[in-house]
Amino acid sequence: MFSLELCDKAEALVALYRERGRMLATAESCTGGLVAALITSVAGSSAVLERGFVTYSNCAKIECLGVEEALLARHGAVSAEVAIAMAAGALAHSHAHISIAITGIAGPAGGSPEKPVGLVHLARACRNGDIVGVEKRFGDLGRAAIRLASVETALDLLLAAAL
Amino acid sequence: MFSLELCDKAEALVALYRERGRMLATAESCTGGLVAALITSVAGSSAVLERGFVTYSNCAKIECLGVEEALLARHGAVSAEVAIAMAAGALAHSHAHISIAITGIAGPAGGSPEKPVGLVHLARACRNGDIVGVEKRFGDLGRAAIRLASVETALDLLLAAAL
Repeated sequence: MFSLELCDKAEALVALYRERGRMLATAESCTGGLVAALITSVAGSSAVLERGFVTYSNCAKIECLGVEEALLARHGAVSAEVAIAMAAGALAHSHAHISIAITGIAGPAGGSPEKPVGLVHLARACRNGDIVGVEKRFGDLGRAAIRLASVETALDLLLAAAL
Repeated sequence: MFSLELCDKAEALVALYRERGRMLATAESCTGGLVAALITSVAGSSAVLERGFVTYSNCAKIECLGVEEALLARHGAVSAEVAIAMAAGALAHSHAHISIAITGIAGPAGGSPEKPVGLVHLARACRNGDIVGVEKRFGDLGRAAIRLASVETALDLLLAAAL
């Protein structure tokens, strides 16, 4: 069901993290569980995916990940600040070594001139304190394509981590 | 990326739950986030999916959902008892009205004579206390097909709930 390219990346990810003994946690908003679903499509991924959070509502971001309500109010759920807080929260609320967070506007509704459909913020956090944030503007490719492009970016970020 | 049949079910689910003002929480083990990913593929699903848990490890089942360690030890993670505890835990750890839990053996490894590959337990819990458990034995269809069959059963259970 995922493209061959995404499946290849997921297999490479699981092989790499297994070899290095590293576990992952996911914190997903606009991708809604797709990153976790793709990783767990690989046999043996239970050694790699420690847990995942699908924090679609702001309340879930606050309660599951410890994102501060004031941060959400100040910057909005789709922002670099919230993506970073989600990634840090996923580490704080799991036993994973590395986390990935994704928050974006998959559309068709919810866009604005400053935050158009296709805007996605991702962040990767490691236990050593390293945090990397990425902003993508995929444009209005359609909901499914924006979500899959976000998944691919998430996997690329996880593959590029210094383990 | 999901089959037309699954997409149709997800659209019907989102329309039904929106109309009734009901929100959902997911607690996924073997499906690894696929149920949440399918539901959130539908535009407007933010009114319906309150949050989702991908509790792949036993530790995640205990910490995110409050499943008792003794229950996991006594019955195993793939059991009717644990599916019910996951569904109840997803309600207790969210603001959703209805929850769905899925735990199974997607393979290719992990099967045994009593618990073969393809064995999947699902449970649906409602705030009024109703809990429904379902045991499926899909057989060794392969990992991807077992996961998708589990997703379909989960959606059928959610569509059949008295809202």
